[in-house]
Amino acid sequence: MAALPWQYVTPGIPDDLFERLPGIPMSQREIRLLLLSYLRLERDSVVWDIGAGTGTISVEAGLLCPAGQIIAVERDEEVASLIRRNCDRFQVKNVQVIEGSAPDCLPDLPLPPQRVCIEGGRSLKTIFAEVWKYLPAGGRVVATAANLENLYQLSEGFAEWQVRHVEVVQLAVNRLERQGINQVFTASDPIFVLSGEKVG
Amino acid sequence: MAALPWQYVTPGIPDDLFERLPGIPMSQREIRLLLLSYLRLERDSVVWDIGAGTGTISVEAGLLCPAGQIIAVERDEEVASLIRRNCDRFQVKNVQVIEGSAPDCLPDLPLPPQRVCIEGGRSLKTIFAEVWKYLPAGGRVVATAANLENLYQLSEGFAEWQVRHVEVVQLAVNRLERQGINQVFTASDPIFVLSGEKVG
Amino acid sequence: MAALPWQYVTPGIPDDLFERLPGIPMSQREIRLLLLSYLRLERDSVVWDIGAGTGTISVEAGLLCPAGQIIAVERDEEVASLIRRNCDRFQVKNVQVIEGSAPDCLPDLPLPPQRVCIEGGRSLKTIFAEVWKYLPAGGRVVATAANLENLYQLSEGFAEWQVRHVEVVQLAVNRLERQGINQVFTASDPIFVLSGEKVG
Amino acid sequence: MAALPWQYVTPGIPDDLFERLPGIPMSQREIRLLLLSYLRLERDSVVWDIGAGTGTISVEAGLLCPAGQIIAVERDEEVASLIRRNCDRFQVKNVQVIEGSAPDCLPDLPLPPQRVCIEGGRSLKTIFAEVWKYLPAGGRVVATAANLENLYQLSEGFAEWQVRHVEVVQLAVNRLERQGINQVFTASDPIFVLSGEKVG
Repeated sequence: MAALPWQYVTPGIPDDLFERLPGIPMSQREIRLLLLSYLRLERDSVVWDIGAGTGTISVEAGLLCPAGQIIAVERDEEVASLIRRNCDRFQVKNVQVIEGSAPDCLPDLPLPPQRVCIEGGRSLKTIFAEVWKYLPAGGRVVATAANLENLYQLSEGFAEWQVRHVEVVQLAVNRLERQGINQVFTASDPIFVLSGEKVG
Repeated sequence: MAALPWQYVTPGIPDDLFERLPGIPMSQREIRLLLLSYLRLERDSVVWDIGAGTGTISVEAGLLCPAGQIIAVERDEEVASLIRRNCDRFQVKNVQVIEGSAPDCLPDLPLPPQRVCIEGGRSLKTIFAEVWKYLPAGGRVVATAANLENLYQLSEGFAEWQVRHVEVVQLAVNRLERQGINQVFTASDPIFVLSGEKVG
Repeated sequence: MAALPWQYVTPGIPDDLFERLPGIPMSQREIRLLLLSYLRLERDSVVWDIGAGTGTISVEAGLLCPAGQIIAVERDEEVASLIRRNCDRFQVKNVQVIEGSAPDCLPDLPLPPQRVCIEGGRSLKTIFAEVWKYLPAGGRVVATAANLENLYQLSEGFAEWQVRHVEVVQLAVNRLERQGINQVFTASDPIFVLSGEKVG
Repeated sequence: MAALPWQYVTPGIPDDLFERLPGIPMSQREIRLLLLSYLRLERDSVVWDIGAGTGTISVEAGLLCPAGQIIAVERDEEVASLIRRNCDRFQVKNVQVIEGSAPDCLPDLPLPPQRVCIEGGRSLKTIFAEVWKYLPAGGRVVATAANLENLYQLSEGFAEWQVRHVEVVQLAVNRLERQGINQVFTASDPIFVLSGEKVG
C-alpha cells in the first residue's frame, strides 16, 4: 500500500487508516484528540509514548511536531514493527521505536522527555513514578485508564507526586452507525484520561 | 489583559482562557477538538464559522491555518465584538467577523468556503442547504446539535443533499471536579456532532 | 430446567436468568426497570407488550400485576414460543402471547389496554397511532428507540397525538466487568425511552 | 398538602413528588430504580437505609415491603424530620427514622438487616465494614458513589470482605428537556452503583 500522507493540520486521523493487529490496543480517534490536546505539543517537543500499541499517538505527534522527536516505547517486537509500519504509512520520520519494557528501559532512552503519554503498562503507578523523575519543570504527562485499577493507580500517583493543573475526564462516545436502513446508536467503552503538569 | 498567544501546535485551548459573555454559547474544549478534527483543516483553508458565538472555533482555526482565512458570521453586534476581542487575545489576525444573519448574509461573504462549521442559527436546515451551494467538491461541513430538533434538521439536510462520508457522534464528557476533599463526577450536556464531505 | 420463580417484589430480573435466542432483542435489565417504572403498573393493569421479543417485560409485568392481564404481541412464531417458555420459567400465568403483526392484529386483541409498551415493530409511528386509539384516558404508553429513525417517529407521534406528561430519557450504562485481574469499564449501547399519558 | 399515596406497584416515584430541602441529597428516580432492584426486596424485608437523605429509598422500600421494616439512619435532625414528612406524604407507616451517625449508631438499631442501602456517610469503608457484621448470609448490600474516593473505598471494602455476586454499574441519564420550542439534551451527573451479596 502506498504511503498516505495526512495533509491536514488538524489531528484525528480516522482509525481505519492505520494498520492494525488483532488484540493490539489502539487509542480511538476521539480519545487520541484529547490525549494530544492535553499534551500541549510544541513544534519541537520531545515526546515519550509509553505502551504505544498501534502507534497512533506517535504518528500524530510526529506529524504535529516536525522539529520534535517522538520516542515510542513498546515491549513487544511485533507491535514495535507495527508502529514502524504505521509511521512509514504516514511518512513520519521523527519517531524512534524502542523495544523495551517500562519502567526498566527508561534510563536507556536517547532523550529526556518534555511530554509523556502513558497508554499502558504492567504497573502504571511505578511507570508514572519513574517517568516523573525524567520530566523537567513545565513538562506535561497524560495517561489513559480503561479499568478501575489503572484509574486508582494513576490517581494515587498524581496525588503523591503533586502533579499540578490536573484534569481527569471520562469520555463516552456514541456513534450513529448505519445498520440496514436505520442509524443505530452504538457506544464505545468509556476511557478515563488524566493529565497534568510538573511545576519547578 | 495582555495578549496570551497560544504557543502550542495542538488545538484545545482551555475554556477559561477565552473571554465569555453570559448567555453566549461556547463550544466546550472537547467538542471543539472534534469539530476542528472533522473539519480537516489545511494550512491555507478558507473556513466559514456560522453562528460563531464566543469565537473559539474561529480562534483555533485561525491559529491552525496561518495561511488561511476564517470568516465568522454572527448576527449580534455585541457577540461579534466578543469574537474580535477573543481573536485579539490570542493574536489571531486572519479571522474576519461579519455581522449578519445566515443564510441571508451568505451571498455577501468575501470568499467561498472550503470548510464550514455550523454552530447555530434559527433554521439549521435552511442554513445548511444554502451553505451547501457555496461548498466546492472536496469541501467539508461540520455541525453541532444540542437539541433534538437540530439533530433532525441536520440529519435530514445531510440525507437530502447527499453528504458523503457522514459521521454522527454523540459526545458525553464527565469531568472529575474537586469539591472539598472529594473528586466528584460531573457531567456535561451531551452534544451531537455531524460531519461530512461534498463529492464532486 | 426447573421453574425459577422470582421471589422478590422488586423488578429487575438479571438478564441471564431468561432463556434467550440468538438475534432476538431483549430489553436489558436497566432499561427494563425504566420501562416498567414509566408504565406505572397497578395490581390489575391490562398491558399490551408490542414487539415483545424475549418477553422480559411481559414476565416482569405479569409478576408485578398478579390480578392483571398481559398481552404480548409477537410476529414470529419461534419468538412467541420463547416468550411462553420464559413465562413458564418464572411461573407467570397471566401473560397471553398473540402471534401477529402490529398494527394489523391490534383489533383482534382480547382486551383494550391500560398500559402499552412498544418495544419494536416495522413502523413505530403507525403502531403508535393505532395503539393510541385503544388507549383510554389515564392510560400510559412507553416506547424504546435504539436508532434515530425510531426516535424521530416516536417523537413526532407523541407530538401529533398530544401525549401528555411526556418524558424522554437516554440511558447509558457502563458496567465494570472483570477481565483477568482488572475491572474494565464496558459500555452498553444507549437507548432512548419515551413515555407519556393520555388525558381524557 | 394532602397525602399522595402512590397507587402503583412499580417503583420510581417522580422526584418532584417528594418534599425536598436545599442541599440535601436525593437519589434521582433512575438511580433509585437501580438501588431498589439490586436490593432484591421481599414483602417482609428488614432494610437499613444509611445516610437516607431525602428518604426516597425508605419511602419506596416501605411501599414495596408492606410486611417489612425500614430503618432509616440519618445524622441530621432536620433531615430526619424531612424523611418523616416524606413518609407521611406517601402514607408509609413502616419506616422508622433513627437519628444517629453510622457506624456508631448501628449497634443501637432495633433490628438486624436483611438488606442494606448505603447512600452516604463520612467514611464509607468503615460503615461498610460494620454493616457487614450485621448482615446475615443471603443478605444484600447496595451503595452509591458519586465521587472517586467513595468508589475506591467501597470497591476496596467489597473486595476485602469478599462480597459475592458483585455488580458495579455507572449510570448516565440524559434527559430531553423542553427549552422554548426546542428539546435539549441535558445530562445528570453520573453515579456508580455497587451491589452484592453475603454468602454464608
